[in-house]
Amino acid sequence: MRVLGIDPGIAIVGFGFIDKQGHKLVPVQYGSIQTEAHTPDALRLKQVYEAAVQLIDKYKPDAVAIEKLFFNRNVTTALTVGQARGVLMLAAEQKGLPIAEYTPLQVKQAIVGYGKAEKKQVQEMVRMFLNLSAAPKPDDVADALAIAICHAHSATLQHKINEVHKR
Amino acid sequence: MRVLGIDPGIAIVGFGFIDKQGHKLVPVQYGSIQTEAHTPDALRLKQVYEAAVQLIDKYKPDAVAIEKLFFNRNVTTALTVGQARGVLMLAAEQKGLPIAEYTPLQVKQAIVGYGKAEKKQVQEMVRMFLNLSAAPKPDDVADALAIAICHAHSATLQHKINEVHKR
Repeated sequence: MRVLGIDPGIAIVGFGFIDKQGHKLVPVQYGSIQTEAHTPDALRLKQVYEAAVQLIDKYKPDAVAIEKLFFNRNVTTALTVGQARGVLMLAAEQKGLPIAEYTPLQVKQAIVGYGKAEKKQVQEMVRMFLNLSAAPKPDDVADALAIAICHAHSATLQHKINEVHKR
Repeated sequence: MRVLGIDPGIAIVGFGFIDKQGHKLVPVQYGSIQTEAHTPDALRLKQVYEAAVQLIDKYKPDAVAIEKLFFNRNVTTALTVGQARGVLMLAAEQKGLPIAEYTPLQVKQAIVGYGKAEKKQVQEMVRMFLNLSAAPKPDDVADALAIAICHAHSATLQHKINEVHKR
């Protein structure tokens, strides 16, 4: 199963594709979509959308996991990030991909084991899970990979639960 | 000049196309895009996007005017409306249309003459400007037409300013 993890934003969108092979998680491709400041919002949204479509076409994920935003952020940020999140979800939906949403709390719990883990700890666990020599930069990329890993784990759990129900 | 006014949302998107013919404003088509509750967000966003693309293809506006959201609304609303706003702006940008944004305050000032006007007053002015027998329902449709009228007026003003500058 190939998962695309996304950390949405308008200036920078982190993305990470990982393959789940048995119990192993293998990084396929990761990086960021970046748009320039002082550019109209609508153009930046089009750039984010088109880059996402290209990535999905190239790396063909089976599922998408996207960060569900903090609700204690400010309203202006929520609106701006919401707009980017909207075009990213549209790109996934148009490709018929299942979309899972996780809060930062859920991601931290899945990766480190408790919800109040620090950014550094999450990054270090991402590095270990994916057997990387260094934590990916910028933070948005590490966050996107963390969301993908979180979904790979949850999907495994869900699979096990389904198996139990079948018996 | 044909203007498409949009009042963005996820459950209901108000839209209104108006033609500016000299000093006259003529309603072309108006109504709403509605999506069902208990439907995944991504699917609703796809429905909103596809309906917007269809409307733009059919009524071929020269410009789009969209409501800029209140920043005193709550964060969850801002995120949800932001997502819908994102796919609507994407649809307009993909068609190469200029996109103008107006706050509810600006719309009220342009339509009624002062920013604290009540909803009813705005609706009545929309009815009068467009020579309709009754104010369009639901409110989202009247709001979308108000935004379109606001833009038609601003565009006229901008045009006059440009003419002055030319002399």
